[in-house]
Amino acid sequence: MKKISFSTREKRREVLARLERFGLDLYEQLEKGIFPNITMPSRSIDNIYYSPELRQYVLGDKKIKRSASNIRHLRPFAQLVWMAFFTHELTQNQKTSTLRDVFYSAQAYDISFKDQDESDDIITDLETILGCTREDFNVFPEESSAVFGDLTIEYTIPNYEGKRLNLTSHPDGVMIGPALTSAEFIETSADKVIAIEKGGLFTRFIEERVHERFNAILVFLRGQAPRSTRYFIRRLNQELGLPVYIFTDADPWGMHIAMVIISGSANAAHIRELTTPDAKWAGVWASDIINYKLPSDKLEDIDVKRLHELMRDPRYKDELWQREINVFMRIQRKCELEAFSRYGLTHIVDKYLPQRLKDLED
Amino acid sequence: MKKISFSTREKRREVLARLERFGLDLYEQLEKGIFPNITMPSRSIDNIYYSPELRQYVLGDKKIKRSASNIRHLRPFAQLVWMAFFTHELTQNQKTSTLRDVFYSAQAYDISFKDQDESDDIITDLETILGCTREDFNVFPEESSAVFGDLTIEYTIPNYEGKRLNLTSHPDGVMIGPALTSAEFIETSADKVIAIEKGGLFTRFIEERVHERFNAILVFLRGQAPRSTRYFIRRLNQELGLPVYIFTDADPWGMHIAMVIISGSANAAHIRELTTPDAKWAGVWASDIINYKLPSDKLEDIDVKRLHELMRDPRYKDELWQREINVFMRIQRKCELEAFSRYGLTHIVDKYLPQRLKDLED
Repeated sequence: MKKISFSTREKRREVLARLERFGLDLYEQLEKGIFPNITMPSRSIDNIYYSPELRQYVLGDKKIKRSASNIRHLRPFAQLVWMAFFTHELTQNQKTSTLRDVFYSAQAYDISFKDQDESDDIITDLETILGCTREDFNVFPEESSAVFGDLTIEYTIPNYEGKRLNLTSHPDGVMIGPALTSAEFIETSADKVIAIEKGGLFTRFIEERVHERFNAILVFLRGQAPRSTRYFIRRLNQELGLPVYIFTDADPWGMHIAMVIISGSANAAHIRELTTPDAKWAGVWASDIINYKLPSDKLEDIDVKRLHELMRDPRYKDELWQREINVFMRIQRKCELEAFSRYGLTHIVDKYLPQRLKDLED
Repeated sequence: MKKISFSTREKRREVLARLERFGLDLYEQLEKGIFPNITMPSRSIDNIYYSPELRQYVLGDKKIKRSASNIRHLRPFAQLVWMAFFTHELTQNQKTSTLRDVFYSAQAYDISFKDQDESDDIITDLETILGCTREDFNVFPEESSAVFGDLTIEYTIPNYEGKRLNLTSHPDGVMIGPALTSAEFIETSADKVIAIEKGGLFTRFIEERVHERFNAILVFLRGQAPRSTRYFIRRLNQELGLPVYIFTDADPWGMHIAMVIISGSANAAHIRELTTPDAKWAGVWASDIINYKLPSDKLEDIDVKRLHELMRDPRYKDELWQREINVFMRIQRKCELEAFSRYGLTHIVDKYLPQRLKDLED
């Protein structure tokens, strides 16, 4: 399937076109007098592979077919057709919805889902068929994170169409919701993206003017980044050509926050637009705990268990990851981004950050 | 203690003055040749009372005294003096910090806290002594929620001092962080505040132009609202005279989100600036589940247990609360804000919201 263009306006047109093609195909089958059916890649575990080339999980060649002639398929078939109709309405009218809201909305059409899991699953089917993310057809997550830095965007949503905002306008950070996710990028003086797990550090970075001192766009991840934020980071990387550096706590959970931005998750093996394979985990590394003598805590059993899992995970095979997992195992300690405050509030910005960026750029 | 003025610039000066008075008092005692000591209201449970007049928990008359002459007091005494020094630095330099960051920062001064609980507790001591919130001396929560509507604010933080922003500038909502919390309110055309528990609904309200149709400032609570958001809502109510309506899920946890905005929590019995006693819980009520035939779920054991607690809670003695708790108990059902989507995505805005506002205004 053709790569969707980066212009968000064009993208909306393309998504609508794909939804319409999906519907048209069903009509054509009906007109030919055959039971309509749909073929899509299987998302079962035995069809999920890690692609070293794409540096993410992908689906294999196994397909599944759903046919209206099969009584067991009728229910998910009808649900899927309704979902395509409903998301077409959303996208057409430029209204957004959440996964929860879609579940309840179905009841307005007498479409039955026994629980939200069932409707979420049908939304994933639709992503698989269309080859785009649910955010593309206006189903957004509840959570939102934030961004700050010299980037001027232009909204494409109703009532704001054509309006511009510079992302330094609000020094608490600009929320990454549906309006920002679908905005066009107009202009930036930044030459890198710095993504940060914790809100306190994001605020500190703004206060210490990291965006100016390091020509950076700052992204607040709010822990495990919501999908729309991962998508936003990918756009910053791909459309603007900016390298991405990710700062997290030094523990297996922090590592994985970085990894999911870089290589995505197995759950999203059917889509390509949520990863930033060239993004770099910039710290806090296990080795930083030693080198910077950072205050640290003992690894708990659950941390060690998680490290064993990561060790065997194909996404973690590169040298940096293996090295740091080994250091964690040896020192049996973890630490937080805030631990640098042990050397004063601005130490992380004045010393650690410039050194690490220099190391990674070399 | 004199009421702190509403101007945030004056407030900063007042907080600095109180911190300096605190230090001066210690010096004066030392000069008189006596061991310095500090007297403050006790925060132990037997000194926390509900005040029907203030409609919040308050501290009684019991005092505790900490003296440098008592070996058992020396440690918390030193910690408290350092905390006053450190927060004075923060406030003076207009830098912000989080509770976590304060804990680590202490290590830069060789002040020992055995864990964050201990440093959090000393921060609460300082709040009690100064009679202001930790946000006033620049210790902010990590979480942040958002606001949207026609309100023009003027920043008071460095580099943004004097700059203005209208809170309709970003249609994903404007984050309520340190910069917004400390901004001055300049101008608004709104005549009410609508606070919403869920992000999906907040986005829907913006898309459906609730801010224009109902002349409202919209606040996204993100579940149990962070303290700075409760403080922000109080300011909208007290400085601008706007009535506040709170919309949550129909369950004991949703009720309590509203209640904490209205009457605060027992933990904050020592401060007065986190409550909005005249704010109203506007729904979703248990009785709405019946009247609007909303999709609902069975109450779980933990919900019922919580309802029993609320029934005995002095904050819940008013008629509306008791009535709705009784309805929950009778129907044994709960429901979410999103349940209105059962009647179409805009039903909540087109039908429910205007009717409920009308009822509550009468």
